[in-house]
Amino acid sequence: MKIAIIGFGGVGKAFFQLLRKKKKELMLEGLDIKLIYILKSNGGIYDPEGIDYEDLTVFLENQSDISQYRRGGSKKANFQLLIENHDIDVLIEMTPTNKKTAEPAMTYIKWALANGKHVITANKGPVLLAYKQLNLLAAQNNVQFCIGCTAGGALPTINGGLIDMAGSQITSIEGILNGTTNFILQEMEEKNISYELALKTAQHLGIAETDPTLDVEGWDTATKLLILTNVLMNQEKELEDIKVEGITRITLESVKKAIEEGKKYKLIGKATNKNNKIELTVQLEILDNHHPLFNVNGKNKGVRYASDTLGDLTIIGGASGVIPAAASILRDLIIIHRGYHFSR
Amino acid sequence: MKIAIIGFGGVGKAFFQLLRKKKKELMLEGLDIKLIYILKSNGGIYDPEGIDYEDLTVFLENQSDISQYRRGGSKKANFQLLIENHDIDVLIEMTPTNKKTAEPAMTYIKWALANGKHVITANKGPVLLAYKQLNLLAAQNNVQFCIGCTAGGALPTINGGLIDMAGSQITSIEGILNGTTNFILQEMEEKNISYELALKTAQHLGIAETDPTLDVEGWDTATKLLILTNVLMNQEKELEDIKVEGITRITLESVKKAIEEGKKYKLIGKATNKNNKIELTVQLEILDNHHPLFNVNGKNKGVRYASDTLGDLTIIGGASGVIPAAASILRDLIIIHRGYHFSR
Repeated sequence: MKIAIIGFGGVGKAFFQLLRKKKKELMLEGLDIKLIYILKSNGGIYDPEGIDYEDLTVFLENQSDISQYRRGGSKKANFQLLIENHDIDVLIEMTPTNKKTAEPAMTYIKWALANGKHVITANKGPVLLAYKQLNLLAAQNNVQFCIGCTAGGALPTINGGLIDMAGSQITSIEGILNGTTNFILQEMEEKNISYELALKTAQHLGIAETDPTLDVEGWDTATKLLILTNVLMNQEKELEDIKVEGITRITLESVKKAIEEGKKYKLIGKATNKNNKIELTVQLEILDNHHPLFNVNGKNKGVRYASDTLGDLTIIGGASGVIPAAASILRDLIIIHRGYHFSR
Repeated sequence: MKIAIIGFGGVGKAFFQLLRKKKKELMLEGLDIKLIYILKSNGGIYDPEGIDYEDLTVFLENQSDISQYRRGGSKKANFQLLIENHDIDVLIEMTPTNKKTAEPAMTYIKWALANGKHVITANKGPVLLAYKQLNLLAAQNNVQFCIGCTAGGALPTINGGLIDMAGSQITSIEGILNGTTNFILQEMEEKNISYELALKTAQHLGIAETDPTLDVEGWDTATKLLILTNVLMNQEKELEDIKVEGITRITLESVKKAIEEGKKYKLIGKATNKNNKIELTVQLEILDNHHPLFNVNGKNKGVRYASDTLGDLTIIGGASGVIPAAASILRDLIIIHRGYHFSR
């Protein structure tokens, strides 16, 4: 299986390392992966025989600009060369997300699918803008469009919904989909501190970003909820269809009151069916200690699906970080290798 | 896809009803199922054009012996006829479990796999006795051997471990795998009653059997733990390798003490790696309220996998009952249809 990586940030580098470390294990499963392109915005490399993991690892210890790597059979490359050579089986797309245009990812993905290459993307942009269209394009070209890490990373929200719930209708979705806000709420509970202080702790630990808006105002949760709803409940909703409230107005007083009653505040993204209309909300909710998402702790995430025939399914986990994110891309690659059809 | 059902008890009947109710939905997915055999120990029926769901449903409302059904194109049939006709794609095996010989299921399954028919089984016997052998036989004949409902019914313990954790090594397993004992423990907690009274309630509600030994002595949990360990951690353990303790000696006093401390007793099946040896235990453990399995309530089940690269995954759900069990067989059928390779 010949693959290309496009986008070589934290997750890209972790994925590369995973390919290196798991090489033998993957061979045992019959999966012989040749990584032949690594592309970035400022250029990249191409080795038709497969880039030498060990040698490139040594190179990267001393230098960060991969486009300068020329050892072994590696040549300079860009996406134009990949199009001309037409020699990959799978494109792994990990460029930065743009939620408005989804570019340049959209161009890469469309080219790959239309030309019979499987695509695995870690990028929410194209999924938000054009999931149905891209999935159809994949089906028409008998390849797979895999998005297993776009709504919760290692937590198998997408694959869990598509595969573990196969044959049943998902009737509602409820999830703690953002690790940062979940961490902040837990800090307030456990350390008895204000929202502002808990946010600062999270920023200090590198869990929250300097501008935490996307997380704390609920937009990251909303984005993931939207992907899950459209993919698993066959909807075509947009961000504007979601009533979004973040956690910024929560007081220590209310957190303490909940704890005294044995309850917890959680930021919940929810898709529910009200009179045959799907209602979407992101808001703080008080969970009692019987709720299956009550114990989604720290930076973990969790999701609960209700269904017509398979009952309720709750999935908890999805440690944050580049390694689990990379591992979830590898998971999609293996599921493709095992023949599973995501796209029909 | 032409299928045969062998074994037509509660789950078999529920599966038949599911095929009937989901017919249109399955056609939309491109899955055109023709049920051509329903076989029981005392005989069965065969219709090469596909048994008429609606008509047979009406028949079953008045009569329970399916071997007497002769309407439409249905003829009398047995497994010998199925062998002679050689006209199915998938065998769905739901005969009663025999944990010693696994017969007659083993004979049916071996014939089917060796003759290029996919097999889905709801039967623990063959999985316990010969999973590796049967999986290999399936791989040699390029068909699938699916066991997705043999360790927790609707709870996707097997598929979750095989598919959602693909590419990572599962390093430990921890599970609440028996709904009956979980219900009994919860009754003691909530109603402040003795083990004996809670067991009686469970028996009265039809949750526990008249002879509850298999559940309350931990053997049902042990059986499921064994399947999960062998399948997901690539082991060849036997029941004797598990240290098994049930819940029969629990006192109301100890349950109350745990509750006062905000904790709960749960019957936990566990596979852990101690110095490169897998240790297997089934025993009562005290979980604190941070544990992800703390909120596995009532008849639900839950399992937690730790892994090298995908972090922890906890899966909770798996409502008991014949409909979810049947739905989990349908799930395996759909996953086969979507091309996934369980057996290699």
